[in-house]
Amino acid sequence: MKNTPPIALPPAAVVGTPLADIDTPALVIDLDAFERNLDRLQAAADAAGVQLRPHGKAHKTPAVALAQIARGAVGICCQKVSEALPFIEAGVHDIHISNEIASASKARLLAQAALRARMSVCVDDAAQVDLLGTAADEAGSRIGVFVEIDIGHGRCGVSGAEAVLRLHAAVARHPALEWRGLQAYHGGLQHLRGHAERREKSFAAAARAAEVVAALAAAGVPCPTVTGGGSGSAEFDFESGVFTEIQAGSYAFMDRDYADNQATGPLRFEHAMFLACTVMSTAAGAHVVVDAGLKSMSVDSGLPTVWPAGPLRYRQASDEHGVIGATEPGGPLPALGTPLLLVPGHCDPTVNLHDELICLRDGRVETLWPVAARGLSR
Amino acid sequence: MKNTPPIALPPAAVVGTPLADIDTPALVIDLDAFERNLDRLQAAADAAGVQLRPHGKAHKTPAVALAQIARGAVGICCQKVSEALPFIEAGVHDIHISNEIASASKARLLAQAALRARMSVCVDDAAQVDLLGTAADEAGSRIGVFVEIDIGHGRCGVSGAEAVLRLHAAVARHPALEWRGLQAYHGGLQHLRGHAERREKSFAAAARAAEVVAALAAAGVPCPTVTGGGSGSAEFDFESGVFTEIQAGSYAFMDRDYADNQATGPLRFEHAMFLACTVMSTAAGAHVVVDAGLKSMSVDSGLPTVWPAGPLRYRQASDEHGVIGATEPGGPLPALGTPLLLVPGHCDPTVNLHDELICLRDGRVETLWPVAARGLSR
Repeated sequence: MKNTPPIALPPAAVVGTPLADIDTPALVIDLDAFERNLDRLQAAADAAGVQLRPHGKAHKTPAVALAQIARGAVGICCQKVSEALPFIEAGVHDIHISNEIASASKARLLAQAALRARMSVCVDDAAQVDLLGTAADEAGSRIGVFVEIDIGHGRCGVSGAEAVLRLHAAVARHPALEWRGLQAYHGGLQHLRGHAERREKSFAAAARAAEVVAALAAAGVPCPTVTGGGSGSAEFDFESGVFTEIQAGSYAFMDRDYADNQATGPLRFEHAMFLACTVMSTAAGAHVVVDAGLKSMSVDSGLPTVWPAGPLRYRQASDEHGVIGATEPGGPLPALGTPLLLVPGHCDPTVNLHDELICLRDGRVETLWPVAARGLSR
Repeated sequence: MKNTPPIALPPAAVVGTPLADIDTPALVIDLDAFERNLDRLQAAADAAGVQLRPHGKAHKTPAVALAQIARGAVGICCQKVSEALPFIEAGVHDIHISNEIASASKARLLAQAALRARMSVCVDDAAQVDLLGTAADEAGSRIGVFVEIDIGHGRCGVSGAEAVLRLHAAVARHPALEWRGLQAYHGGLQHLRGHAERREKSFAAAARAAEVVAALAAAGVPCPTVTGGGSGSAEFDFESGVFTEIQAGSYAFMDRDYADNQATGPLRFEHAMFLACTVMSTAAGAHVVVDAGLKSMSVDSGLPTVWPAGPLRYRQASDEHGVIGATEPGGPLPALGTPLLLVPGHCDPTVNLHDELICLRDGRVETLWPVAARGLSR
């Protein structure tokens, strides 16, 4: 063994690298498709007079958030307080934490963040309100508070206006907290495949939110913002009349799972994120093996598809590898060393496996975006 | 908004932090259980006169590799070339890349690594041999080469001695390559639940490897090392007489999937890795929600269990949250803010989601280990 300096891992790509020369596995973005997706949802929000607050958990990438805000988004959502920090550093000034926190350490971090950006969070228990109020008071900041209501998702959130009124009163007792309104999110209907069923269930869920808003109004409690919705229900949420703000995230990249939804309206999105991989074994004959598996994409929502759709099928994932066969028995298979593109089953946890997005236009790398919130789950 | 400096994310824990005070989600190691697991497998390997080469893909953590080597392991495996780099920096001097590579950039990186450590890799195609030979020649290093044979796994590897002999001849033509022998790995049988079935199939797979070794010997080709095996088959692989080196990885941490295997012999391992999480919503009444989901553990091999086993069941994972219910209908549920431990379904991709392992003894943090190879999938 010679005494040599540390071995530097070369970058997977630099500006100008052609797609086929990117070292794999790597997460690549088709910038044209990505920008069209952003433009389409923003135009629909503008036409409906509804604000867009895209979800940062889908991309964890400040450059993406800034592109969304440049088109008119009012800010972003994050799913965890720590996730918000790199966005704040990058200049995102308005961030909603779209769920509850229940520990003093997280409340303190949120209160610190609120010194730098307009921050809000959900509650569904008075103990959370007290944690937030104490932390904001100590930090000298103000935290916006939404009561989360369960409109059928069955995860977090209170049911009915009475519980909301009790939490509203708890918020009002803390001068460092600011009442913002309601969060109403139904994750379960985002992936209902049939367009008609998704439409019907989305309106039913929105109607449950509207009932609570009406009951609050009757009790003299205003509801300045009703935030919720997602990429699967956005077209209906815009129409619902109850949501003032939509939290869609996946529309920017469009994974396989969302593309499996039946779309019949004008609001369609394109695949803009792909996992680049390479055939590294063809010895089996009846299949090939690529260098992308569970550690470069999440299979929680099913396996990826091979892009463009057609002759090849990703059949099985192991830690770092995947088996790809012919869609038709006996169909042709790619040669050793062939670069391939996959459409991941679920974009959010897939992005969280990568430290950068390699962004392409006209087949060459135009820019590299750090996934700055990767791994920030606290 | 005040003009304040960047917000630093506080550490999840420091030395001395009690388990219940760790900021969650966080991956924690029970050091006593971990050390017993390492001791048990090393003792079994020593008793069998077989070398242990634990798989670094299971932990991606140099401190773990060094603990394995300190007990007698001959080196480690990595699944990708980039994954090996932090181990080399930490002083691991013998690393086998336990699959094939098929691009010049990866061959060059491996050849560079071979200037710093004893490196080897698998081949199942003459084109891979040529890439390796050229890269090692250019770098002035030597790369060890194993031919991978398929003993029933059905992923990579050639079938039969003739194909091995052709690749052996290809290796022999490159002076910078060193013939090492065979890799024979059968991932499919690692999780056969029944002990008797796993035993029978493990011996059948080993017999296929023994046939190839015998055919090579008859052709005058030595087979200095036969490497393979895993945590599920190790007890049989030791006994097989054909493996000279075992690649087990998961035994160090023991995930839920491996624990679901029926174990009847003396070689048993304990859960040593847990995902610490916190109850952050109890509003639903019939279940609670914790702050650990798809971004802090992989569910490719099924959902986690709640530890210790008993009254609670993890029912559903979303990106950053999980729904936990009572095992018995109407059973008691934990209060808001309660810390809980989960046993992840699959340790390898779960570790890959975290930047550090928080190591405990007697209920307090003893040390923090960086997961230095996290995200290195190239």
